[in-house]
Amino acid sequence: MRISARNSINGTIISITKGVVNSEVVLDIGDGILVTSIISTHAVESLGLKEGVQAFAVIKSSEVMIAVD
Amino acid sequence: MRISARNSINGTIISITKGVVNSEVVLDIGDGILVTSIISTHAVESLGLKEGVQAFAVIKSSEVMIAVD
Amino acid sequence: MRISARNSINGTIISITKGVVNSEVVLDIGDGILVTSIISTHAVESLGLKEGVQAFAVIKSSEVMIAVD
Amino acid sequence: MRISARNSINGTIISITKGVVNSEVVLDIGDGILVTSIISTHAVESLGLKEGVQAFAVIKSSEVMIAVD
Amino acid sequence: MRISARNSINGTIISITKGVVNSEVVLDIGDGILVTSIISTHAVESLGLKEGVQAFAVIKSSEVMIAVD
Amino acid sequence: MRISARNSINGTIISITKGVVNSEVVLDIGDGILVTSIISTHAVESLGLKEGVQAFAVIKSSEVMIAVD
Repeated sequence: MRISARNSINGTIISITKGVVNSEVVLDIGDGILVTSIISTHAVESLGLKEGVQAFAVIKSSEVMIAVD
Repeated sequence: MRISARNSINGTIISITKGVVNSEVVLDIGDGILVTSIISTHAVESLGLKEGVQAFAVIKSSEVMIAVD
Repeated sequence: MRISARNSINGTIISITKGVVNSEVVLDIGDGILVTSIISTHAVESLGLKEGVQAFAVIKSSEVMIAVD
Repeated sequence: MRISARNSINGTIISITKGVVNSEVVLDIGDGILVTSIISTHAVESLGLKEGVQAFAVIKSSEVMIAVD
Repeated sequence: MRISARNSINGTIISITKGVVNSEVVLDIGDGILVTSIISTHAVESLGLKEGVQAFAVIKSSEVMIAVD
Repeated sequence: MRISARNSINGTIISITKGVVNSEVVLDIGDGILVTSIISTHAVESLGLKEGVQAFAVIKSSEVMIAVD
């Protein structure tokens, strides 16, 4: 499947915190940069996500803001 | 200002495409990884964004999806 | 690629309206139900989207609201 | 109230999973298509949502992505 | 129609900037506070939005971030 | 830090409801208007958010819908 979301960044899952409905998944994408995602707990289980698994952070470009110092 | 959005990734602006209402801003965050953002053209102008400027891609964690091969 | 977004609805593209940065894509998912998407014009072109093409509307569950009469 | 969100799909609630802050609501919109929504538990209660109730999945078009095989 | 989005703030439309696909609508919600929305141009036209019209800014709570100085 | 999100509304935190992953934060922005935000519990703790604290509701304009009666 190819998707319109423009951002797809590869990394390794380093932690998963599960709630009843949502779970927090933290991905190490290298150079000490961590990306935090909150997805449904159902998705975590159906995708078989675990610490150490390779995964992509996928982000629609309209959800990315820009900030400057 | 400190914000609740959990993801803030530093990079260099490499291109800006301006529409009437929205603009596409592409950030090089290193290691050949590009992050594409779509923000309002008003914001591009008020933040003084230009190619070569250092900026952060800021993303609320609930907007980050996870994908696996 | 399998993605955490929980909603993936199959349909046929019936119209595409292109702007400089964003494009509006309308999908017929059957039973007279149309789903409208706004994605980047770049994505429309890189995915080769055209009228008549089969495609999926993919929606993260946290972006779906519920309304009642 | 008429709202700018372009997508409003009618269905029947078939399950509700409640967390402290968020709840997952699954809607059957016909033809075996399920739409999953995550909204606040407060909203589930104030709208009186229950299994079997008719409801609409409402989605802003800029939150709909497109994917192709 | 009652919707799960928790934020609905009343105001007066003070400007509309139309693009091909998206339009920027600015609402004065009182006390000098302006709220800017970007919605589809189709929605602006189908809702008959014009300067001076009373309207609501409607925002899903999961789209609201919190910042502190 | 200056951010591209166009909406930044000042208020006082009047309640925080913490879940495992997400927390609901309600802000009083004056004139009896409450703004509800759902952010990660981690962010609530790292920003030191508490009842009575001054904070800003920050919202990307593409997340603001418009409704009319």
